[in-house]
This record gives sequence, structure tokens and C-alpha cells, in this order.
Amino acid sequence: MSYRIGTGIDFHQLVEGRDLYIGGVKIPHTKGALGHSDADVLLHAICDALLGALALGDIGKHFPDTDASLKNIDSKILLQQTYNLINNKGYSVVNIDATVCLERPKIMPYAAQMRTVIAAILNITVDDISIKATTTEKMGFAGREEGLFANASVLLQKI
Amino acid sequence: MSYRIGTGIDFHQLVEGRDLYIGGVKIPHTKGALGHSDADVLLHAICDALLGALALGDIGKHFPDTDASLKNIDSKILLQQTYNLINNKGYSVVNIDATVCLERPKIMPYAAQMRTVIAAILNITVDDISIKATTTEKMGFAGREEGLFANASVLLQKI
Amino acid sequence: MSYRIGTGIDFHQLVEGRDLYIGGVKIPHTKGALGHSDADVLLHAICDALLGALALGDIGKHFPDTDASLKNIDSKILLQQTYNLINNKGYSVVNIDATVCLERPKIMPYAAQMRTVIAAILNITVDDISIKATTTEKMGFAGREEGLFANASVLLQKI
Repeated sequence: MSYRIGTGIDFHQLVEGRDLYIGGVKIPHTKGALGHSDADVLLHAICDALLGALALGDIGKHFPDTDASLKNIDSKILLQQTYNLINNKGYSVVNIDATVCLERPKIMPYAAQMRTVIAAILNITVDDISIKATTTEKMGFAGREEGLFANASVLLQKI
Repeated sequence: MSYRIGTGIDFHQLVEGRDLYIGGVKIPHTKGALGHSDADVLLHAICDALLGALALGDIGKHFPDTDASLKNIDSKILLQQTYNLINNKGYSVVNIDATVCLERPKIMPYAAQMRTVIAAILNITVDDISIKATTTEKMGFAGREEGLFANASVLLQKI
Repeated sequence: MSYRIGTGIDFHQLVEGRDLYIGGVKIPHTKGALGHSDADVLLHAICDALLGALALGDIGKHFPDTDASLKNIDSKILLQQTYNLINNKGYSVVNIDATVCLERPKIMPYAAQMRTVIAAILNITVDDISIKATTTEKMGFAGREEGLFANASVLLQKI
């Protein structure tokens, strides 16, 4: 069995007048993440981890924010396209572990729904995708609710 | 051999009037980490990485800060309970690599002791648990000594 | 096949009057990273990940900033020495995935060159070393261009 490791990290500002998408799920909140796409910090971190595991560049290379066709795009589409790249290289996902760092709102009530969405796209079971959350204890830009960030680690194996 | 990857990250404020526990060891300092438990940032990151590797939720799910019985609890107990969950699922720890990010104090003089404590709980050798430290070069909340954070990566294998 | 996981993170201030080295490549910019060595944040993160995977301590232990012989040293030398340690322990690198977090300048135009440099030192192919970049969306110390940071994950295997 041949394995590969990948990790991704992504950051977005939180601003009024935007919807908040995390893990492919729209979460009720007074602010949303700012970005060219729907700014889904968790899906972006996972995309970057998948791309990185096979040294395929980063999300900015594959989905540049200068591409008008990607304006406000659903990041589930980006994740699907990323998965296709991995799959075409002959790899499958063993498991993913991700953490979203934000002060508010509480997102764990939505984690099961996120895992279902992500597992379907990546052709894994919900037991193979972990989503965790933590605050930064009111410290830094996430603690001041100026933004949020997420990291993801993936283990791939050659099919 | 079947492997799984997990990662954890944890943050705590540093305040006067608290003891500083890192990696299960009490470290002399003018401040301690603020939290519901003993606020051991390193053990919490490791717990989250272990839980995440098997998609068992996060430390907030298993050890909520609303649970009065966990007030000021020794995080070694949380690590032991987390290990039991992993072990009951049929997995053992291959290795762990963790980094504690803080401006002060120097913690590497205590790393050997931390590794002995953690290895005993997780049923591994000290060569299977790595503890590293770095400052954030006086930048951000850790650089201003308002707080500290730690990350941990784990590799598990099916027994 | 016996695997090990490692992760590293490194931080440096950006100041005027210093050259900017990232991934072994000198990058034109108005500021450079401050440090005892050439302050190559990416190579340092990779060194720490390699050391951590085998629990050999951290970069501060092997290359202390109190060692006058390391003043302004090319971090490629530190990476070579770190690789020798790994290799002497009987391990080779499966793959590395790293992300550099900084607001400016754009570093991806130099990623291919960085990968060539790193692959040669670590005795892997360029397909086994991934370099990604992201901004922190103008947030925090990296967003204010006070500094930059990088993380790296490595997968090793017993030869």
C-alpha cells in the first residue's frame, strides 16, 4: 500500500452582507466569509490538502480569484473537481481530519451534515471525514471575529 | 497495515493566578493557561488529533467545558480516556509529532519529562512522541504573551 | 512498510535591510525575514517536520541561534544536515506538503525552483515535494506584513 500525506490551511474575513458557508453547509450567522467564491474555508482547506498530497499546486492555481466564472461559485464544485484530479492520478482518500477555528457561531451542530456532503463528493464514508471546531479563546483576528481559518490533513493511498 | 491520520490544534490565554501545565508537566512561570480544565494546551491538541483520526468528534464534545466534574481536571485523565476510545476502536498510535508555540517560558528543558508522561498513557515509547517548541518571534497574541497554542499530528494503525 | 508522520511550523518577522529567502530561493522584495540564519521559513518548517517525525528534537536544539557559526547560514545546509540525520536512522522521505502564509510577495512563481532545490537535498523527486502559498487575507501579523509563517507535513518510511 502506497500512502501520501497532505495538509491545507485557509483564511477568510468575516463581513456583514455575506452568507456563511462552512463544509458545504449554509450556517445562520450575522456575518459571512469574504471571498471570490462562496469562501468556504473548510472546503478550501480540504482542496489544498488534497492537491498538496500529490504536489498538484494549490487552490489559487487551479481556481484563481481572477477567474470571473468562479465568482460566488459553490465550493462543493471546486472540491468535486479537486477529487477528480486526485482520482485521475490513481489515488483514493483514506481519511481526512479538519479543524475550523472561529469564535462564533457554534458549528458542531452542523458537522454531521458537513461530513455527509463531503463524504459523498470524495467517495468515502462519514467515518473517514472528521470535522472539529475550536475558538482561539478571543485572541487574535479569529478571537476578535474579524475572520476565521481552517486546517485539514489528508491521507491518500494509491488505488 | 491500515493507517489513519489526525491533527489537533488548541489555544489558551495566559493569565496571572493560574498554574502552567504543558504536556502533563507543571512548568514554573509567572502566568498559567486559562481554561475549564487545567488548560494543558499540548495534551488537548493531542486529544483532538487522536479523536480526529477516527472521526470521533472533538475534545469539546467528549469533555465539555459545561461539565462541572471536569473543573480544573488534570488533562492526563482526558488523554487516558481518549486513548481508551482509540484503543477500543482497535487502533494503536504509531507516532505523534507536536509543536508548542509560545514566547515564554522555555519549555524544551521539560520535553523529556512530558514525553515520558505521554508515552506511558498512550502505550508507546518516548521515541514515538515528539515535542517541539517555537516562539512566534514576538508577533501576534502568542508573541505578546497573551496566550499560547499547540498543534499535534498523529499516525494511527489498525491493530 | 513502516511509516512515520511529522509536522513543522516556523515564524519570522519581515524587516527592511534583509534578503528574503524562501525554500532555498532568494526572492526579490522590499523586506526580508529576520533571524540568526538566513531565516528561510519554509526550509525551517521542513527541518522541524523531519526531526519531529523521528522525535529527534527541534531545529532550535540542532541549530541553536546562540551558535555563532550559524550566523546568516544558508538554511539549505541545515536541511542537508537534517536529512543526514533522518537517513542515518534508516528512513527516507515519502512526500512533503508545505504551505507558506504571507501577504506579499507572490511566491508561487518561484515554487518550481524551490521544489527542485529541496528535492535534490532530500533525494526525492519534485513530485514528492509540494509547496503552496496563501495570504491570511490581510488579517493578523502576516496580513499586516509584519511577518510570515510556514507549515510542513512529512511522511517518512523505513528503508
